[in-house]
Amino acid sequence: MKLFLTIGYLGTNYCGYQVQPGKPTVQKALNEAAKALFGFDCDVVGCSRTDSGVHATCFCATLSEKGKESLPLKMDASKVPLALSAHLPRDIAVYDAKWVEDDFHARYDVKEKEYLYRICNRAVRDPFEEGRACHVPVPIGDDDLARMKEAAAYFVGKHDFSAFRAVGSKETDPVRTVFSASVERKGDLVLFRVAANGFLYHMVRIMAGTLLEVASGKRTTESVKTLLEDPTSGTAGMTAPAEGLYLVRVTY
Amino acid sequence: MKLFLTIGYLGTNYCGYQVQPGKPTVQKALNEAAKALFGFDCDVVGCSRTDSGVHATCFCATLSEKGKESLPLKMDASKVPLALSAHLPRDIAVYDAKWVEDDFHARYDVKEKEYLYRICNRAVRDPFEEGRACHVPVPIGDDDLARMKEAAAYFVGKHDFSAFRAVGSKETDPVRTVFSASVERKGDLVLFRVAANGFLYHMVRIMAGTLLEVASGKRTTESVKTLLEDPTSGTAGMTAPAEGLYLVRVTY
Repeated sequence: MKLFLTIGYLGTNYCGYQVQPGKPTVQKALNEAAKALFGFDCDVVGCSRTDSGVHATCFCATLSEKGKESLPLKMDASKVPLALSAHLPRDIAVYDAKWVEDDFHARYDVKEKEYLYRICNRAVRDPFEEGRACHVPVPIGDDDLARMKEAAAYFVGKHDFSAFRAVGSKETDPVRTVFSASVERKGDLVLFRVAANGFLYHMVRIMAGTLLEVASGKRTTESVKTLLEDPTSGTAGMTAPAEGLYLVRVTY
Repeated sequence: MKLFLTIGYLGTNYCGYQVQPGKPTVQKALNEAAKALFGFDCDVVGCSRTDSGVHATCFCATLSEKGKESLPLKMDASKVPLALSAHLPRDIAVYDAKWVEDDFHARYDVKEKEYLYRICNRAVRDPFEEGRACHVPVPIGDDDLARMKEAAAYFVGKHDFSAFRAVGSKETDPVRTVFSASVERKGDLVLFRVAANGFLYHMVRIMAGTLLEVASGKRTTESVKTLLEDPTSGTAGMTAPAEGLYLVRVTY
């Protein structure tokens, strides 16, 4: 058996999830915390990579002894969140832990992931949203919001999302199934949520950037439909900043 | 005429509002931003002092030429928030500005102030609430919450709040009128709000600390009533940490 962890982190101070030599990453912090707690090296396998500055309110990972598929310990999993969090920096915490079988894979067994993209829409920036939302000073009116919703609805379904991935992305299969996509206003915030069976590199940020171009009138809602029908017919919008992006749900 | 500003700031990186030699304060940042924008030294008079680490979503201040009660400029006040915010650090912003008479005083003319105290009540700390709420890991149950509400209701009215101020506080008149005081749960958060015609030094934090002692059963709701009737009859609770406190409304 190995441990399955549910983790939250504010990504501002990290170069993403995945270990990179000489850089602060969430995985590195988890590795160090596990070693401090258990006294031996561990493998931490995450559900996903996240970009530098991206946040997660629900990131899933497994913890096993280094090079093995199990953790040679018998302990009450309910004690793990507090114990491991005590060894983590203040911007990372383990919310929940349970034992899972050796053959469970935190990344390959994911059925669905949901991301939230937060847009702070007010003329002057909000100090409390600094690094936590994308600041858009130009007002997004009700008509603009309606067009964003219309465009987001086109994302739903099984499509070739080639137009919505970073240049140089190496994934061979660009087809993904989006289960839901919505846009809502909540006070000064405009929230874009999207759930799918998987995402291409930068896909959510390019979706968010494209919706913002729909809002500003720079592109039509139909252009989104066209890009999904024929990814070579044009280019999607800008890649919206990492700071607005949150991984909020992972389903196995 | 001088400028009346509505300001928001995340207090984490500041030694409070008021200028202190050699320390980062919100007032210092505002002074520097005003000088950078207008080209001459200014006086910034705030509605209140706030402690190190305390936040404000609505802090009011006036801006005039140094040593004078007016600002020798004619400009559209609506341009000020963006212009001044551009010269401020990312954790401070000016939300609104308008012209007021020379004899208006940001501090002495305050009729009512409202503070919010945020308590994050979950076993494991929340990385997104780090520095923004007081973390209470022990569950606050519905009965505990009911007692907090009952105790908070005693604060309402005109009372001698001597028992609810920091030792060494120099204010001669300890009588204040509390207009409203409430406690509510919102997800993992327990929110204490209190509005009054003024507050003694550390008063809201001691109120919050006392309510937390009521919640944990360390003291009775009646002890709060007794301390207001006879401030010399005992001592109030601990001073809750600054990081949970927000100035949220100022009425003139």
